[in-house]
Amino acid sequence: MTTPRFSRTEIVDTASLAAATETVSKKHTIRQPVLIVGTGLLGTSIGLGLRAAGVEVLLTDPSPSAQAVAEDIGAGRSLTADHQPGTVIVAAPPDVTGDEIINALQRWPEAVVLDIASVKTAIANHLAEAISDGRITSQDAQRYIGTHPMAGRERSGPVAARGELFTAAPWVLCKTPATPQYVIDVASDVARLLGATIYHMSAEEHDAAVAQISHLPQIAASLLASRLQDTSAQALQLAGNGLRDTTRIAASDASLWVQILTANADQILPELYGMKADLDRLINTLNAPYATGSRLDVAQLMDEGNRGQARIPGKHGGPAQSFALVTVLIDDTPGAMVSALQAVAEAGVNVEDLRMEHSSGYQVGMLEISVVPGHKKHLVASLTALGWKVL
Amino acid sequence: MTTPRFSRTEIVDTASLAAATETVSKKHTIRQPVLIVGTGLLGTSIGLGLRAAGVEVLLTDPSPSAQAVAEDIGAGRSLTADHQPGTVIVAAPPDVTGDEIINALQRWPEAVVLDIASVKTAIANHLAEAISDGRITSQDAQRYIGTHPMAGRERSGPVAARGELFTAAPWVLCKTPATPQYVIDVASDVARLLGATIYHMSAEEHDAAVAQISHLPQIAASLLASRLQDTSAQALQLAGNGLRDTTRIAASDASLWVQILTANADQILPELYGMKADLDRLINTLNAPYATGSRLDVAQLMDEGNRGQARIPGKHGGPAQSFALVTVLIDDTPGAMVSALQAVAEAGVNVEDLRMEHSSGYQVGMLEISVVPGHKKHLVASLTALGWKVL
Repeated sequence: MTTPRFSRTEIVDTASLAAATETVSKKHTIRQPVLIVGTGLLGTSIGLGLRAAGVEVLLTDPSPSAQAVAEDIGAGRSLTADHQPGTVIVAAPPDVTGDEIINALQRWPEAVVLDIASVKTAIANHLAEAISDGRITSQDAQRYIGTHPMAGRERSGPVAARGELFTAAPWVLCKTPATPQYVIDVASDVARLLGATIYHMSAEEHDAAVAQISHLPQIAASLLASRLQDTSAQALQLAGNGLRDTTRIAASDASLWVQILTANADQILPELYGMKADLDRLINTLNAPYATGSRLDVAQLMDEGNRGQARIPGKHGGPAQSFALVTVLIDDTPGAMVSALQAVAEAGVNVEDLRMEHSSGYQVGMLEISVVPGHKKHLVASLTALGWKVL
Repeated sequence: MTTPRFSRTEIVDTASLAAATETVSKKHTIRQPVLIVGTGLLGTSIGLGLRAAGVEVLLTDPSPSAQAVAEDIGAGRSLTADHQPGTVIVAAPPDVTGDEIINALQRWPEAVVLDIASVKTAIANHLAEAISDGRITSQDAQRYIGTHPMAGRERSGPVAARGELFTAAPWVLCKTPATPQYVIDVASDVARLLGATIYHMSAEEHDAAVAQISHLPQIAASLLASRLQDTSAQALQLAGNGLRDTTRIAASDASLWVQILTANADQILPELYGMKADLDRLINTLNAPYATGSRLDVAQLMDEGNRGQARIPGKHGGPAQSFALVTVLIDDTPGAMVSALQAVAEAGVNVEDLRMEHSSGYQVGMLEISVVPGHKKHLVASLTALGWKVL
């Protein structure tokens, strides 16, 4: 018997809030031992998190050294021939995930099998082919559910793994009408034990969603950062937080993204055509920037960007919200930021978001604190009274 | 006699470090009173900062209410007919900056005139035309120097102004071979009194630099955010920090950006053609994702993004550096973050950068702290010993 490690887990299912509430109140039904196939960053992190929750975890990886590292850091024990996993979590690279699922369904006829790959339709199609050519039965396939924990793609390898990687991260479950409740329960349990927030979507809905909110941003960041290859060092000295933020995810693992973009090409392409049309139009316009209508064209593009950006939800699932910004000037020393935030806490104001502004060649920092708009006036007064420079 | 408000100002001039050092040691030579033409966010912030440094500041704006607000919040006094400014800072919208410079050169034949518009070549061309059609002499034009403080474009209006807006921000001075030293000194003094870091570039170098590190990121963010106009609310619930960071600057002032992109079209277009070529190639590739060579193509694009991103310099002008990340799990309460950072300070470790990771629907936060790699082990041990969950 185990208890969930994180008590404040929530289940979010816009389609059926009643069903979700029922799921929350259930005892968990994970079937042990849990086998993790693939001990990269995500597989190893799942192992660490489940072990911390008291679950028995087995590990296997084609790379003996990756498997040994995962075992050494406490993510589980190595799989042997006589083990009978009750749950199999396929955490392999996207390219081989389909075959690993089929293999698991064949080898352990009682096990619930789930995968965590970032693209779901391609895997569903792969399984449908395996059914039609007789490698698995449709009964076998019902023991499978596709899932996608949206966390951790900027680092890689078992050494970077951490049990809390999924805390507060969305975890999408792609059940089908044929998926039995016990299979959904097992997958929900895995996500819940790891502290994630559960969303239910079809594979198609999921793939369209990640094309827009994950794959397209990755492409935009990579296309943009790619331009910096030929930028002079002098120009790069002027880089501010705008450039840093816009290109941060361009540092992501190239080989993983090849697999993701390839597998979700059908959903990504319409977005790329839309972006290309806007880009072509901007190029035409900037070739005659003072022609009639040109400025209106550019204004429309910028305005559409404003409107799209404003639709991104805020923290904690609330509607997109403009927090009030309070900027405090601090010395760049270990104590300064703490003192400033202590003053904020003493004023009784919650920090909704926080960022440091800094730029090249200077040792003074600015701490940008986002607060609920109604609290700004009080906070500014409190900080100013204590002698802080508030901007 | 005034003293600089910020003592740790630095002058950075890669072309001539010796000359820069000499400039630093000089007393400042700003000519008073300083007239600020245009009391928007930047003009008003300059007024507030110069006033705080003890400089006499005059204000003028075509909008009487904007001018009154700027005067009310202490950015300077309103210009009257008998005032004789020694320095004129044109902080008007980019569109009218050229004419305001010409007007200032004509009206005050002794004054040093500088502007702060984001694009410099178009203004230089505008002045060259004014010389050739006899509105100003080339002697008049020598009293002008183009500058660009790289700060503050995400908010607007005098109410948002703050004297410290330029602290630690790059401030580019575009002197020409004809610019007299005293004009350079006045502009340097303005930047230095406001706490900015000075860079010297030609107008062409500046415009090419900002096309790459500022204008192209703005376009990429706007093109990307524009796609989100039709994204379902369900999909947007899955948005993580990747999407938020990549689209943040898409919230910028549309009408200002129309002027900037139009004025710098010549420098921006080559970058847009480069981006379009990469996008076209990606579209072709994803139309046949499993064809020979397709994966290599995508891998090359992602890899080029990796390489470009790695070229962006780190904090304080150092080379691009991978700080070690230490992630601390915190409750979402006012005190939790303070306690965590206090523990970091007590461990004697400096926080190089800081961000909060959070996602929809969850009340636990993760504080990502960047530290010098050599300090990570000690910090993790210290925090763990104090009972913090460190990831």
